Amino acid sequence: MSPVDDRIKELQEKIKALKVAKQDASKEVDEMKALKAQQTKDKKDGPAGFQLKVPKGTLDHKPAAALLRKKIFNTLENIFTTHGAETIDTPVFELKDILAGKYGEDSKLIYDLQDQGGELCSLRYDLTVPFARYVAMNGITSMKRYHIAKVYRRDQPVMSKGRMREFYQCDFDIAGNYDAMVPDAEIMLILTECLEQLEIGDFTIKINHRKILDGIFELAGVPADKIRAISSAVDKLDKLPWADVKKEMTVEKGLDPVIADRIGEYVGIKGEGREVLARLQGDEKLNSIPSAKAGLDDMAILFDYLENCYGILGRFSFDMSLARGLDYYTGIIYEAVTDGSAPAAPAAAAAEGDAKTKGKKAAKVVNEDGVDESAVGVGSIAAGGRYDNLVNMFAEAAGSKRSELVPCVGVSIGVERVYAILEQRRRAEAAKPRSKETQVYVMALGGGLLPERMKFAKQLWDAGIKAEFMYKAKPKAPAQWAVADNDQVRYVAILAPAELAKGIVRIKEQGVEREAGQDNGEEVEIDKVVEYLKQRL
Amino acid sequence: MSPVDDRIKELQEKIKALKVAKQDASKEVDEMKALKAQQTKDKKDGPAGFQLKVPKGTLDHKPAAALLRKKIFNTLENIFTTHGAETIDTPVFELKDILAGKYGEDSKLIYDLQDQGGELCSLRYDLTVPFARYVAMNGITSMKRYHIAKVYRRDQPVMSKGRMREFYQCDFDIAGNYDAMVPDAEIMLILTECLEQLEIGDFTIKINHRKILDGIFELAGVPADKIRAISSAVDKLDKLPWADVKKEMTVEKGLDPVIADRIGEYVGIKGEGREVLARLQGDEKLNSIPSAKAGLDDMAILFDYLENCYGILGRFSFDMSLARGLDYYTGIIYEAVTDGSAPAAPAAAAAEGDAKTKGKKAAKVVNEDGVDESAVGVGSIAAGGRYDNLVNMFAEAAGSKRSELVPCVGVSIGVERVYAILEQRRRAEAAKPRSKETQVYVMALGGGLLPERMKFAKQLWDAGIKAEFMYKAKPKAPAQWAVADNDQVRYVAILAPAELAKGIVRIKEQGVEREAGQDNGEEVEIDKVVEYLKQRL
Repeated sequence: MSPVDDRIKELQEKIKALKVAKQDASKEVDEMKALKAQQTKDKKDGPAGFQLKVPKGTLDHKPAAALLRKKIFNTLENIFTTHGAETIDTPVFELKDILAGKYGEDSKLIYDLQDQGGELCSLRYDLTVPFARYVAMNGITSMKRYHIAKVYRRDQPVMSKGRMREFYQCDFDIAGNYDAMVPDAEIMLILTECLEQLEIGDFTIKINHRKILDGIFELAGVPADKIRAISSAVDKLDKLPWADVKKEMTVEKGLDPVIADRIGEYVGIKGEGREVLARLQGDEKLNSIPSAKAGLDDMAILFDYLENCYGILGRFSFDMSLARGLDYYTGIIYEAVTDGSAPAAPAAAAAEGDAKTKGKKAAKVVNEDGVDESAVGVGSIAAGGRYDNLVNMFAEAAGSKRSELVPCVGVSIGVERVYAILEQRRRAEAAKPRSKETQVYVMALGGGLLPERMKFAKQLWDAGIKAEFMYKAKPKAPAQWAVADNDQVRYVAILAPAELAKGIVRIKEQGVEREAGQDNGEEVEIDKVVEYLKQRL
Repeated sequence: MSPVDDRIKELQEKIKALKVAKQDASKEVDEMKALKAQQTKDKKDGPAGFQLKVPKGTLDHKPAAALLRKKIFNTLENIFTTHGAETIDTPVFELKDILAGKYGEDSKLIYDLQDQGGELCSLRYDLTVPFARYVAMNGITSMKRYHIAKVYRRDQPVMSKGRMREFYQCDFDIAGNYDAMVPDAEIMLILTECLEQLEIGDFTIKINHRKILDGIFELAGVPADKIRAISSAVDKLDKLPWADVKKEMTVEKGLDPVIADRIGEYVGIKGEGREVLARLQGDEKLNSIPSAKAGLDDMAILFDYLENCYGILGRFSFDMSLARGLDYYTGIIYEAVTDGSAPAAPAAAAAEGDAKTKGKKAAKVVNEDGVDESAVGVGSIAAGGRYDNLVNMFAEAAGSKRSELVPCVGVSIGVERVYAILEQRRRAEAAKPRSKETQVYVMALGGGLLPERMKFAKQLWDAGIKAEFMYKAKPKAPAQWAVADNDQVRYVAILAPAELAKGIVRIKEQGVEREAGQDNGEEVEIDKVVEYLKQRL
């Protein structure tokens, strides 16, 4: 052992002693952490520069994290199949041409595979484009599908914010020609069910409609060729004050400031769905724009379904500042935020042209992208919208003339953010996470009893009971207890020579307070153990 | 519609009519298929060469296939966790250096990511190397882990044989210093449980030991530097006759024919575990080689556990011709074959130097790699072995001096082959696979009743019942019945205005023969529907 190892061991013992004595050990903990970090760093730079690490922006999900993710996926999958969804599994890479021209300026973040003499391929950037490609390629006219898988973006990773180069997406989409807002309403219900069942705390779903936004831009006088650019400026209102957004519109994007101010009159409008709808429906100038009128009609139908059929309208905030960055949306758009993550006094100030309050707040904590993360919190936790043309874009680009449009609406749940919230809560509760599901630890007290433990475990496995034992011929008692404790295994089955001879094992439930003398567990006949445990597990 | 479309439609109607009349429609079916194939081909070559397809060697798993795979994964996952395994989730790409030098001549099949100014990365080739990297990187000394994920190989794809460039692997490994053959025996039990529960039919697990093989090579006089090359020639004995393998050893690899013949005396030995063991233990020359002696001692312990503790020794064939290609194995090696896929009269002939029988057979169906696929069938369905040095290779290459060896033993289940067997069986049974799990289809007869269907479905969803309805305001009855039939939904809930007014819906079980007049389902009060269905589902 190196002197550093020695010092770490010394500190560990001191910390343990201080903790037992309920005294402050923070100084010792800090020193130990610093030494360990240095050790890790030293270890990283091996001979000939060989580093034992994962690529930048990726990470290993360790067992406890992988298990929590598995639970999240199971919850979501169960909701999706309850609503009749099928799943598909597409390749992790697509032909480069399939992804080209779908992500605007973010296309630079696409990972390409090396040209090794064959087709040019790229790792998928999201799950929506592969879905649209699948629907177009197979001539599908209607489908409900979900897809939980990893996607790839060569972004600058910010590990502490959970922004990674490899991360999970979890998408649910409905494709097909249906009556207005019926699938949309169900997607909204599904989103609500997901966030409720994931128990991430209170949330709000911000909702808007691309046609209403386009109507506002048209009314304000935005030139047609600037609409998408101005729209993506509006989308930053949850992160930037109106003054900054206006500056982007006018200085960067050359919009007439008078037009920008007209937009400013609208994009601050937000609130309870019915109220905002009534206000906008009462706006004669806006209703004279056919696009806006169509969007408002959609919202009226949608709110009706959400209120009267699904009873979830209270979750929604009709928010004119929500624009969503992606080009392909054509109808409703939405974004769920946890209440902690929604800024307290949001873009409302912008409507009155008063950007000071928010501006000041934003100035406090601005990250490397100039985004105020303190106001954004964990950020939007789910988002999506209606995209009616994407499938047909693929079909047409490939030269097939489809007589029928295949409109789609979908939502993507931000699994990584859900994970971050749940993991943060667990840490706050200081609970040690379980990383495995073992129910019974089979141990020997006296004599090793390896074949007996193996046979006994086999009996449990055959009954579907999750069981383990130590792979040693003569394991020591403390070592076996330590594993059972560390893995938080609920039951311990104790094999001992004298009891075995009588056909008996002792079963002890862990972590249960007992009266003195009652701590040796219950004696159970070997051939009744499965029955005994099945009743209790 | 094009003339081709018209002709296809015409054929479809004719086929339908012929089928109704129970007449032969095969000629029409063939013509239609040919036309459709041509259409698909035409569709593929879009304007400017844009092709709507997935990359070579990959495929979309469509819903029914994805659902069957999900069931396979669930079965395996349940077995793994029953044995106390944790899962980890590693990135789909690793640093290129991590994979380098691990796969021998197959390294040319590794997919590299394009160098976009950063680290050089490659898609993972298997799950074993990432596991060893993870164990070494995190200083882990013991772990049971499983991992189900896709791996990537730039091989020449043979779709019909299921050889793809992207495919699933499903690995279970035990790392740690334990008593001899205890984890090995459990891995063998797990493999047996997996194959039994997957219901792939009868199977045999071929087993051998690297140390015994090395002992045979030493005894025969193979120079130390040729041992791995000769070993990989031996491994081809399940696909090639002895004459060809001997030729590879002597002509290609420069081995003295006398030495090759000495090897030939051993590699034909195979059979019931105890018998082969007794025969080899009685071979004094072989036992004088320490490596062989050590391997035979291991096998004696293992067979004891497999027979007396786990009762599965009957599944095994102790087979001297099994060598396994990978360099890193150090102990037992094994390969499971379904009984259909194991050659009937295998390498036994080779032992007597008589290669005629097998040579003739192999000559009949030889694929593009010169491999006799008829003899191999669906091929090995699972394989693995003990690898005691891989973790430490990583640790040492990165410059960390580990005092302790971290030996490992593991198995990889060939999920794609399991899938192929199960899918083939389903086709043989001519059963249409379900692609979704919907339990109740909610339909309206008369009046559309859209909000009522939505509210009714919400009631079912809230109770966790998987339900769907048609997203149309006024759907037609035949269209609704068609969906319920096509998706094989077990229950149909029929909403009709008059009954609804009385608070009643009709619930009809599909696919059940009923007496005439009893086919309208049962009338159930709306607020008792959940209870009614829960009892039946």
